[in-house]
Amino acid sequence: MRQEIDLRSDTLTKPTPAMRKAMAEAEVGDAVIDIDPTVERLEHLTAEILGKEAAAFMPSGSMTNQVAVRVHCDRGSEFICEQDCHIYQYEQGAFASLSGLVAKTIPGQGGVLKIEHLRGQVRAHNDHFVHTRLLCLENTHNRGGGRILPQADVIESCQWAKSEGVATHLDGARLWNAAAATGISEAELAAPFDSVSVCFSKGLGAPVGSALVGSRDFIEQARRTRKLFGGGMRQAGIIAAGALYAIENHRGRLGEDHEHAKQLGDVFRSHEGFSIRGNSIDSNIVAVEIAANLGSANEWVAKLEEHGVRCFAISDQAIRFVTHLDIHSDHIRQMRDIFARLVDAKA
Amino acid sequence: MRQEIDLRSDTLTKPTPAMRKAMAEAEVGDAVIDIDPTVERLEHLTAEILGKEAAAFMPSGSMTNQVAVRVHCDRGSEFICEQDCHIYQYEQGAFASLSGLVAKTIPGQGGVLKIEHLRGQVRAHNDHFVHTRLLCLENTHNRGGGRILPQADVIESCQWAKSEGVATHLDGARLWNAAAATGISEAELAAPFDSVSVCFSKGLGAPVGSALVGSRDFIEQARRTRKLFGGGMRQAGIIAAGALYAIENHRGRLGEDHEHAKQLGDVFRSHEGFSIRGNSIDSNIVAVEIAANLGSANEWVAKLEEHGVRCFAISDQAIRFVTHLDIHSDHIRQMRDIFARLVDAKA
Amino acid sequence: MRQEIDLRSDTLTKPTPAMRKAMAEAEVGDAVIDIDPTVERLEHLTAEILGKEAAAFMPSGSMTNQVAVRVHCDRGSEFICEQDCHIYQYEQGAFASLSGLVAKTIPGQGGVLKIEHLRGQVRAHNDHFVHTRLLCLENTHNRGGGRILPQADVIESCQWAKSEGVATHLDGARLWNAAAATGISEAELAAPFDSVSVCFSKGLGAPVGSALVGSRDFIEQARRTRKLFGGGMRQAGIIAAGALYAIENHRGRLGEDHEHAKQLGDVFRSHEGFSIRGNSIDSNIVAVEIAANLGSANEWVAKLEEHGVRCFAISDQAIRFVTHLDIHSDHIRQMRDIFARLVDAKA
Amino acid sequence: MRQEIDLRSDTLTKPTPAMRKAMAEAEVGDAVIDIDPTVERLEHLTAEILGKEAAAFMPSGSMTNQVAVRVHCDRGSEFICEQDCHIYQYEQGAFASLSGLVAKTIPGQGGVLKIEHLRGQVRAHNDHFVHTRLLCLENTHNRGGGRILPQADVIESCQWAKSEGVATHLDGARLWNAAAATGISEAELAAPFDSVSVCFSKGLGAPVGSALVGSRDFIEQARRTRKLFGGGMRQAGIIAAGALYAIENHRGRLGEDHEHAKQLGDVFRSHEGFSIRGNSIDSNIVAVEIAANLGSANEWVAKLEEHGVRCFAISDQAIRFVTHLDIHSDHIRQMRDIFARLVDAKA
Repeated sequence: MRQEIDLRSDTLTKPTPAMRKAMAEAEVGDAVIDIDPTVERLEHLTAEILGKEAAAFMPSGSMTNQVAVRVHCDRGSEFICEQDCHIYQYEQGAFASLSGLVAKTIPGQGGVLKIEHLRGQVRAHNDHFVHTRLLCLENTHNRGGGRILPQADVIESCQWAKSEGVATHLDGARLWNAAAATGISEAELAAPFDSVSVCFSKGLGAPVGSALVGSRDFIEQARRTRKLFGGGMRQAGIIAAGALYAIENHRGRLGEDHEHAKQLGDVFRSHEGFSIRGNSIDSNIVAVEIAANLGSANEWVAKLEEHGVRCFAISDQAIRFVTHLDIHSDHIRQMRDIFARLVDAKA
Repeated sequence: MRQEIDLRSDTLTKPTPAMRKAMAEAEVGDAVIDIDPTVERLEHLTAEILGKEAAAFMPSGSMTNQVAVRVHCDRGSEFICEQDCHIYQYEQGAFASLSGLVAKTIPGQGGVLKIEHLRGQVRAHNDHFVHTRLLCLENTHNRGGGRILPQADVIESCQWAKSEGVATHLDGARLWNAAAATGISEAELAAPFDSVSVCFSKGLGAPVGSALVGSRDFIEQARRTRKLFGGGMRQAGIIAAGALYAIENHRGRLGEDHEHAKQLGDVFRSHEGFSIRGNSIDSNIVAVEIAANLGSANEWVAKLEEHGVRCFAISDQAIRFVTHLDIHSDHIRQMRDIFARLVDAKA
Repeated sequence: MRQEIDLRSDTLTKPTPAMRKAMAEAEVGDAVIDIDPTVERLEHLTAEILGKEAAAFMPSGSMTNQVAVRVHCDRGSEFICEQDCHIYQYEQGAFASLSGLVAKTIPGQGGVLKIEHLRGQVRAHNDHFVHTRLLCLENTHNRGGGRILPQADVIESCQWAKSEGVATHLDGARLWNAAAATGISEAELAAPFDSVSVCFSKGLGAPVGSALVGSRDFIEQARRTRKLFGGGMRQAGIIAAGALYAIENHRGRLGEDHEHAKQLGDVFRSHEGFSIRGNSIDSNIVAVEIAANLGSANEWVAKLEEHGVRCFAISDQAIRFVTHLDIHSDHIRQMRDIFARLVDAKA
Repeated sequence: MRQEIDLRSDTLTKPTPAMRKAMAEAEVGDAVIDIDPTVERLEHLTAEILGKEAAAFMPSGSMTNQVAVRVHCDRGSEFICEQDCHIYQYEQGAFASLSGLVAKTIPGQGGVLKIEHLRGQVRAHNDHFVHTRLLCLENTHNRGGGRILPQADVIESCQWAKSEGVATHLDGARLWNAAAATGISEAELAAPFDSVSVCFSKGLGAPVGSALVGSRDFIEQARRTRKLFGGGMRQAGIIAAGALYAIENHRGRLGEDHEHAKQLGDVFRSHEGFSIRGNSIDSNIVAVEIAANLGSANEWVAKLEEHGVRCFAISDQAIRFVTHLDIHSDHIRQMRDIFARLVDAKA
């Protein structure tokens, strides 16, 4: 049977034998009643890497983000975010539906907000207005095509927020990739923010789990909110062990995924009518814009799938590829040939 | 004592002696337990004028809007609106804070949304997304400077919404002005929408109250939601009588306010560095943009106030004037002189 | 035409000619933008009578109660209340539906909570539990048959709450009646509580409106929440004038209603199979329990209505009568005769 | 080091070597994007055992319960439940805080609701009332001391609910124990209900996870709500494998836990001043009431802990013991001796 090249997401990675072994041997405890020692080790390590006081392990990145937003924003308030960010677009509006919060969305450039976008956006204190409590950024920015936020912009935005009395949260689901690609440590990337959420189940390749980091007080409130959301798990050390293994063994290899993404980008660039969103591949995501005369995104998704390559349409004329642990140089080469044939057939 | 020329809002109008008499003589009943006959007359008349089956009287336009949004949007859904609209900007985020709904804001042109802004904005059915349930428009558009929505755009937008299975609500707080200015009847302006909210306490000059109109079923749900929000009033016929009087006696005179607004616009246009937002005065609102070198909006508000003229700053470099029942030609003439002196003093 | 004796509720009262005159002549202003001087006078007077720092006028008692509960209880908390109270039973669950709060209901005795009911009811701080933030009492207690809470119990309960760090709110919709009946001033009855809501449209006979009183800080937050709920009214002085008139002219006559209620109670007591709930008529409500063999509450409501007497069924075997401004001695005498005939006919 | 006898909860069980092996070898997939085959097998098996169409795997029993309540109850509604149930008492009020719902709590007898408690509890359709949408029961009942609900009462209650148009949900966190103890199959116990939630991490001994079962439509909505709550996990097959192993290998041994619980009960019964809540040990929970003169619950918890026995205080004068997979006959014998010495020392 032909092997599939599944580039839909880096969440698809499967645990390696060594990671499975680590999970099978994990020391565990009841994390709701007492502590689970492996969860605790994971939380300590994550907090340390990100340079924050404390961390809380949760079942998903949506939960870490929505818990963060809820804890930062008291009743009757809003957060500012880039219009295409995950928190606003892809988490079923939980910030409003569960927490009653308003999202103030600002269109950025490829996911990047500049200080000019932000100035003047904090509302006056007036009974007509919600209170502005939080600024959320996303790094790398998924819809922006894995865009890495320029750190100077991040620092400037967070300083502005601070000066306005507004807290800051980073959706760092793929912050590991930003660190690997820039050589700036995760701690330095996280430093401007009050809280950061990171995922273990994306580029790092763990099966399940994310963490939220921040100050000790903030994380204490986050743990309470995690319980409220139904995220209190018992012997979660089993899956935390996978995340620990992933940090210790897969963080160092993310550069390979970025190299593959660049190679994949070259595949598309070499054909007329295909271009890369933002004309830059910063990390492990390749967002390809397709000229209208070459067919729709859905058509290309279908055509590629027929040939064993899977990707997602992310707009009418754009498709997204994500490289990851289970994608090797061979896959990229195969992809090049498949794509060349498809373009030829179309021509 | 010098008389003030208060152009801050058309909500400032005071009841006339004849309106007071109408209120004092109103036939009343307990509108929560039974009906209040004057409220009922007002609701019937309003529904009739707007060409809808039924109406519900409420204490404010914020309540009519927020009740409408809540009834149209089930749990876990969103509404689309122009970014500067009152429902999103000036009602304390009640749609999220009380009803858990997401606002999807789209920047329009002077408050006007075109069909191009809307196409593609309804979300796919997918567990990552909220459901898109409602389109809200505002006519006249307050922040757009009293802008009247081109009816062709309104019709096209509402047809699009219908074809997408999305309901439509009009914040018609000043729909009376749009009808007076265009000569298109309120019923025709309201026809494309499933629900419309109108205010009696703005241009019409009643002391208190707004109404929501729509289908019989919709209004039945709206009445229930009104009770939930604490809007169930007993012998509300007293204030409904003021609204009835306003419809019957003041609707015909709104053209005067528009004439005054145009005259006021000419006052500003005749001085360099002052321009009219959108370069058009459609109704009773005059939004004046001030060149930066002439001072800030707040400075001009203060200066004018010293001379007995009151207005609001609506941005760093813009001030808003609203004409109404209690503003006469004399006031406009006085305003012209005061403003000329202020500009001279500045120069 | 036979005149109706409408004993369904004291909300049915209609404004007197003198009250209408006061409303027609009220000095008004825009209470959202500036202040309305009549509203302000009413708020000052109400706060003074109730011995609190400040007051906020609102369109209904449901709004004053639900605003109070929301302001006292932060996100993720609960309030304790007697199981049959209005806030829990008759306000469409707004505390949960709009504010996400839990009601912890405790069954009292005829609406009265004793300290024994309360001890141990404040939850420990633990991620399994909501936080306990508020105790709500109701005086007079509607479902308890207009029961006046023994002030010693009130004081003890509120002291307990204070010692537990729990705030206290009184639903005093009919606190005026409790004061009139006991001779204890409203201020003294209100003293143990952090906030109190009172209605002008019940026994006092004003057409519309209620007020919430409390500390200056609390009322400032309540005003913001009133706006959120859509309770911001413009020239509300018209209806506030009715409330002012009611306080000044009708507060002194509530004793008559209580006298009529006692006479009404005697009507029922004189017939076998009819008894008074709690065997005491404390104020202007008469809750009559009917022996099962004499027919259901609904049957008696229907039978009385045929003879021009209106009341409500409040359970399968109980009906409620409320005396008020528009009920005179004559009505009670007529009622006695009608009821005697009905009982005879049944026998 | 002295070995601890930890009887605080059956959630404390640790995965056995064979269960760990099953998890290590689990076939997995991305359960958010596609399916995870092991999760799917677990869901099919759980649905089959419980006799329902479909199931959804979630990280906790709080999530399965709160998702169920949210899906059954539309906006502005309430559910009826026994006053001491987990959903109301121990899940941080999520039903209100996240979903805006009202809990109507009814005091039962040791956690058991009889039809007499329920009749008349569904609210009339009236704008004063929330809508009554759901009845929640709990079997076994935790606070009732592991009480098994008499199935005749369950059937009668659910029939009543159906006749009232009210849905039914069972919190069956420990339904496995009820089935093991009564010999009635899980499917039969679940049959009267529209939905049931079960836990794998309690008596069954899996590390993490619960499932919600019901009709295909209901579970489709539950999956959407699971995503909203942040319960969408990727390669969740790792932990689902533990749950599968638990069902297949530990379900049959729950009788041992019940036997141990009975033996433990005898330990207490043999000392004066100690009695068993409800005087019956139905499953694996032993709730012990302590006479006031023998000291408080907290004192006994501390004393036992000094001797290596751990339990929880569940009221001022009651402590709870739970038997489970990691408790053996030896532990019970040790416990008997320890307790005898403690009682003697006290005497």
